[in-house]
Amino acid sequence: MSRLDVTEKIIATKVAKGIKWADVAAKVGLSKEWVTAACLGQMTLDKKQADIIGKIFGLSADEKKWLMVVPYKGSLPTSVPTDPLIYRFYELVSVYGTTFKELIHEEFGDGIMSAIDFKMDLQREPNPAGDRVSITMSGKFLPYKTY
Amino acid sequence: MSRLDVTEKIIATKVAKGIKWADVAAKVGLSKEWVTAACLGQMTLDKKQADIIGKIFGLSADEKKWLMVVPYKGSLPTSVPTDPLIYRFYELVSVYGTTFKELIHEEFGDGIMSAIDFKMDLQREPNPAGDRVSITMSGKFLPYKTY
Amino acid sequence: MSRLDVTEKIIATKVAKGIKWADVAAKVGLSKEWVTAACLGQMTLDKKQADIIGKIFGLSADEKKWLMVVPYKGSLPTSVPTDPLIYRFYELVSVYGTTFKELIHEEFGDGIMSAIDFKMDLQREPNPAGDRVSITMSGKFLPYKTY
Amino acid sequence: MSRLDVTEKIIATKVAKGIKWADVAAKVGLSKEWVTAACLGQMTLDKKQADIIGKIFGLSADEKKWLMVVPYKGSLPTSVPTDPLIYRFYELVSVYGTTFKELIHEEFGDGIMSAIDFKMDLQREPNPAGDRVSITMSGKFLPYKTY
Amino acid sequence: MSRLDVTEKIIATKVAKGIKWADVAAKVGLSKEWVTAACLGQMTLDKKQADIIGKIFGLSADEKKWLMVVPYKGSLPTSVPTDPLIYRFYELVSVYGTTFKELIHEEFGDGIMSAIDFKMDLQREPNPAGDRVSITMSGKFLPYKTY
Amino acid sequence: MSRLDVTEKIIATKVAKGIKWADVAAKVGLSKEWVTAACLGQMTLDKKQADIIGKIFGLSADEKKWLMVVPYKGSLPTSVPTDPLIYRFYELVSVYGTTFKELIHEEFGDGIMSAIDFKMDLQREPNPAGDRVSITMSGKFLPYKTY
Amino acid sequence: MSRLDVTEKIIATKVAKGIKWADVAAKVGLSKEWVTAACLGQMTLDKKQADIIGKIFGLSADEKKWLMVVPYKGSLPTSVPTDPLIYRFYELVSVYGTTFKELIHEEFGDGIMSAIDFKMDLQREPNPAGDRVSITMSGKFLPYKTY
Amino acid sequence: MSRLDVTEKIIATKVAKGIKWADVAAKVGLSKEWVTAACLGQMTLDKKQADIIGKIFGLSADEKKWLMVVPYKGSLPTSVPTDPLIYRFYELVSVYGTTFKELIHEEFGDGIMSAIDFKMDLQREPNPAGDRVSITMSGKFLPYKTY
Amino acid sequence: MSRLDVTEKIIATKVAKGIKWADVAAKVGLSKEWVTAACLGQMTLDKKQADIIGKIFGLSADEKKWLMVVPYKGSLPTSVPTDPLIYRFYELVSVYGTTFKELIHEEFGDGIMSAIDFKMDLQREPNPAGDRVSITMSGKFLPYKTY
Amino acid sequence: MSRLDVTEKIIATKVAKGIKWADVAAKVGLSKEWVTAACLGQMTLDKKQADIIGKIFGLSADEKKWLMVVPYKGSLPTSVPTDPLIYRFYELVSVYGTTFKELIHEEFGDGIMSAIDFKMDLQREPNPAGDRVSITMSGKFLPYKTY
Repeated sequence: MSRLDVTEKIIATKVAKGIKWADVAAKVGLSKEWVTAACLGQMTLDKKQADIIGKIFGLSADEKKWLMVVPYKGSLPTSVPTDPLIYRFYELVSVYGTTFKELIHEEFGDGIMSAIDFKMDLQREPNPAGDRVSITMSGKFLPYKTY
Repeated sequence: MSRLDVTEKIIATKVAKGIKWADVAAKVGLSKEWVTAACLGQMTLDKKQADIIGKIFGLSADEKKWLMVVPYKGSLPTSVPTDPLIYRFYELVSVYGTTFKELIHEEFGDGIMSAIDFKMDLQREPNPAGDRVSITMSGKFLPYKTY
Repeated sequence: MSRLDVTEKIIATKVAKGIKWADVAAKVGLSKEWVTAACLGQMTLDKKQADIIGKIFGLSADEKKWLMVVPYKGSLPTSVPTDPLIYRFYELVSVYGTTFKELIHEEFGDGIMSAIDFKMDLQREPNPAGDRVSITMSGKFLPYKTY
Repeated sequence: MSRLDVTEKIIATKVAKGIKWADVAAKVGLSKEWVTAACLGQMTLDKKQADIIGKIFGLSADEKKWLMVVPYKGSLPTSVPTDPLIYRFYELVSVYGTTFKELIHEEFGDGIMSAIDFKMDLQREPNPAGDRVSITMSGKFLPYKTY
Repeated sequence: MSRLDVTEKIIATKVAKGIKWADVAAKVGLSKEWVTAACLGQMTLDKKQADIIGKIFGLSADEKKWLMVVPYKGSLPTSVPTDPLIYRFYELVSVYGTTFKELIHEEFGDGIMSAIDFKMDLQREPNPAGDRVSITMSGKFLPYKTY
Repeated sequence: MSRLDVTEKIIATKVAKGIKWADVAAKVGLSKEWVTAACLGQMTLDKKQADIIGKIFGLSADEKKWLMVVPYKGSLPTSVPTDPLIYRFYELVSVYGTTFKELIHEEFGDGIMSAIDFKMDLQREPNPAGDRVSITMSGKFLPYKTY
Repeated sequence: MSRLDVTEKIIATKVAKGIKWADVAAKVGLSKEWVTAACLGQMTLDKKQADIIGKIFGLSADEKKWLMVVPYKGSLPTSVPTDPLIYRFYELVSVYGTTFKELIHEEFGDGIMSAIDFKMDLQREPNPAGDRVSITMSGKFLPYKTY
Repeated sequence: MSRLDVTEKIIATKVAKGIKWADVAAKVGLSKEWVTAACLGQMTLDKKQADIIGKIFGLSADEKKWLMVVPYKGSLPTSVPTDPLIYRFYELVSVYGTTFKELIHEEFGDGIMSAIDFKMDLQREPNPAGDRVSITMSGKFLPYKTY
Repeated sequence: MSRLDVTEKIIATKVAKGIKWADVAAKVGLSKEWVTAACLGQMTLDKKQADIIGKIFGLSADEKKWLMVVPYKGSLPTSVPTDPLIYRFYELVSVYGTTFKELIHEEFGDGIMSAIDFKMDLQREPNPAGDRVSITMSGKFLPYKTY
Repeated sequence: MSRLDVTEKIIATKVAKGIKWADVAAKVGLSKEWVTAACLGQMTLDKKQADIIGKIFGLSADEKKWLMVVPYKGSLPTSVPTDPLIYRFYELVSVYGTTFKELIHEEFGDGIMSAIDFKMDLQREPNPAGDRVSITMSGKFLPYKTY
């Protein structure tokens, strides 16, 4: 058994039972972004969170233990993603990558936006010309220091 | 001469003169995100915008014409970026890619967030534990339709 | 169970029973292009469509549910396809890619042809020198806008 | 000197003089698709065509000779294209590749659509919900034969 | 079940029973080159051919149906083959590729040698200095045409 | 100066002067296949051959010396060739690679067809349904031996 | 001019004048590790540091400005390094990567060792069996948090 | 059965029983770094060590034999690691690779730091601004010699 | 069943029974280098050799038949090997590749060292400063000839 | 100027003057293998050696300094070499890689053959059936140790 097996069981159970991520997140009491990533094998749950997830998806004691182990992260099968929805995010990094770099450095100096001390929020943005996906990301700026 | 030559001249002039992207954007009258991407060879300018950019960076008439030609986009030298700041965005796609996919589909059904009908805003988010980079993205949802 | 399992079952059943895609499409009441792509794991069906497909291919209740889940798209095992028929399309992108780009930009300005708000029609074109494959694609033009 | 040099000169001249591909094609008396591909270094011109192109773009005698040499084809710098417009065509091959294969084989049996005995036509398709790009491709079907 | 399963069964049966490709081809009544490629999952058989192959290798009715389905072609596990015998052919393409191109264009103009309307014959060529492998390939020349 | 420079000079001179490979080969007194490969930087010439080539293409004494140095071989810019004519040969290796392997082993046992002790002949094969390219390859069989 | 040009000038000057990195670091008043990385185009200098470096390597005013611009980082020409010394570090990541992961997670929980809030010290470790290279790395632990 | 199966059994047992690497190492009487690497399939154990590990993880006699066989090393599934913790080490090689090279050569001359005659120690480094990961590596310097 | 299955059975049996390659080779009556390569799925055995190997490793009649079939060669899972021992050989090709080329061409002219008509011998070379691995390779020189 | 420039000058001078590596090595007083590798930019020379090489190839004072700087090693332009002679060595690693591993581990236990404390000798081996290339490699065995 591995974390991947648990992730696949969660996904298959979600399809079979018609569970919604938003409901799972509400039961866990955290954001839908973090909870979904955790269920998809990218984050580590504590005992209490694992028990809730385990109950929703009918996991065994051993399967719940895997949820509490830090996973080997990276959710995509290829380095350039083939799925159109995910590719669009890759395209944004490709087209806007140097722009992110220039503007963050102009504002903060040399360093990075943390992808660890990070959170995000994904919302529907109603719009008469067609609703929009709105994503707000917030990551701590980490400066390079001399030594 | 090519668009790349013009981009390199803009960057070299920016370093030599100490120009700021925020000031360039203010003169153009558009967001710093779009203007920076345009100066870095990813967007197409109209005549009036090209004239302003041309004046700031001392471009010739021919160089300004290149700014008005749609560029071959993609700003990164390798498919997995090596620069730590840009890599963090790639990592977000890698770790959260399937999460983006699940949550957007749960909210909207099958389709994508447009990377074309798209805008973003990058801001400093003051925080006593260390200031944060805040990025808000907004892209139109485009549904797959049957036919 | 995964969408891939359902796709493989559909294909195996098609071979065993000698089903034709055109007949499947006729029963669903949509184009053969969209219906084939859906059966091959690239599109998402609604309840009614899944029931029809499920009946044709003898799918279980759970298998039909997978047809209604948005799939991870991308139907090819390698980034440069090895199958001669599919490679020819890749070759067209390789040889004509910059031509597509130039002519669409000349006609519409900066933007793309949507691969989402998209439909196509594939027909036999009788010809005394040998029949031809005729493919008509129609995708909405999506302009880049300044912001 | 190489064909690439001639292609780059043609592109630079086009930008500097504001030439349109449609006008070039009209002067050559062939489709804009073929003529643009030829100017971009993908097709071979005969003497008369090369003279017309040479005149439009101010090419020397030697440069015109290069237009009459069969070029090493392939117009893209990476096997998975980074430019968003061109990527959408690659995505169509990725998502619809197996669909093309199934439907062509269902109609014609084993074989391919030729990418050599091939022509295409790209048009604006007016549409109140936003104009569309319409592309019609026609390639001879070439059957595999036993021997 | 898939075509790959059938191919693997054919190969395993060939090893277990000590069948020779030349004998299989003789029973089918076609060249050993085409028949071997078909048995290895690269060509499509008609009903009569599939029955003969099915009898030789003890295939079930469903397995024989797979032989009549157009396969996803490409017989090698890596884009640069590791097997020394097959690599030598790849090396010939690498070393002589531009020579093939120059000589075919010099003789025929712009176009290609078809790999579809193609046949080949592989023979032992007795030679006192060591027997040689002789391969004769014949592919229709397909010219690019203007349009 | 390098062999690549000499190759590029030969090609440029060929285009400028309209030289034919068949004529070059006739003057050297060897096959057009070997001579073309040599001119394209894949084979090594002796003094006499280099003098003839040097005279035809107007090479300097130092340039002729480079023709007599064994070159770093491999004539293609990418591991999977993008040029349609050359790709067809790659496709033959991909589709027929395991067939080559099976038939050569069936005839000769374990070993390879040499790509060094090798020669080939490329001819036009007249055919009422369209002329064909005929290529005859002959390579010494080299057996693996036990030791 | 680009940062790469400045890096290459620094390296060429170092070779020509026989400068030592330890001496450069002493003049800058920082560690040899940080100063060398900065001179090799991986770190950003402030005005005072750039003046010192500029004096040592004879840089112009514009070249010194480039030292103060945040560089596009990543010092290696290939994703798997070919240089034996650098490869050994890559090998350590390959062999010990999962060990690093297990032990850091066992000690700290889910998170990473920062490569930004990071410093290191490289020393000769005398040893009768052959001196050793000793490297001490220190990076802040950054925990993933729920949100 | 293979070493990989044994590694997976060890990891699954560790999760199921909540075993700690530090405790395993204490029982073996060696460093936690070496013991963890060995359990993860990167090092070779002797009989006594294998018996201890076998007892802790409930391995069979045959499974213990696999621990004593030299494994095929390399613990990562992709050449550029996707896991954020492990990627940071890859990033250090990317950013500091040429710095390692320059400083080791300046101190020792041409040669490498051995990744075989190598040991390391990983510790928590308490720090009021957030605890740090401290890693000390020691590898024998191996000089290139003339011959 | 495939050759790979037989190779894996041989390796697993070797581990379980503690068999040594040198002993296997002695029983076969050939070099340990050739016999080991054959057992690892890289060479083809004759009936008598297969019977001996079959007896040592307890192979069935069908498994022994696979040993007599020419395998698809190439023993490594990645094109750049990750295992440190095997990588060192790859590194020798990387560092000394052009040296091999220059010296063989200087001695023999254009051609290659055969990897087919090839044998090698691997021995321990006692040395007070640490024993050494000594490998002697002998491959027939194959000259390129004009034709 | 860079080491690569010096290497290219050495090679060009060698071609122009018809210098032999064996003669260069004799003048340096070391093996032809080491001296050739050094001239090709893979090894580091001391002052005396650089002076000899400098005299032979007419190098300037600065060029000779580059010979004394440790180079970034790796002599091949692609990770899988295209040149037939060098590829044969790569093929040996591919086919015999696991054999090297098994036999060295059987003789020495876990560890590697050093590619640093390494020397080799390449000789012509006269043989009535065609002369052979004989290469003897000797590398120190470096054991992995527990810690």
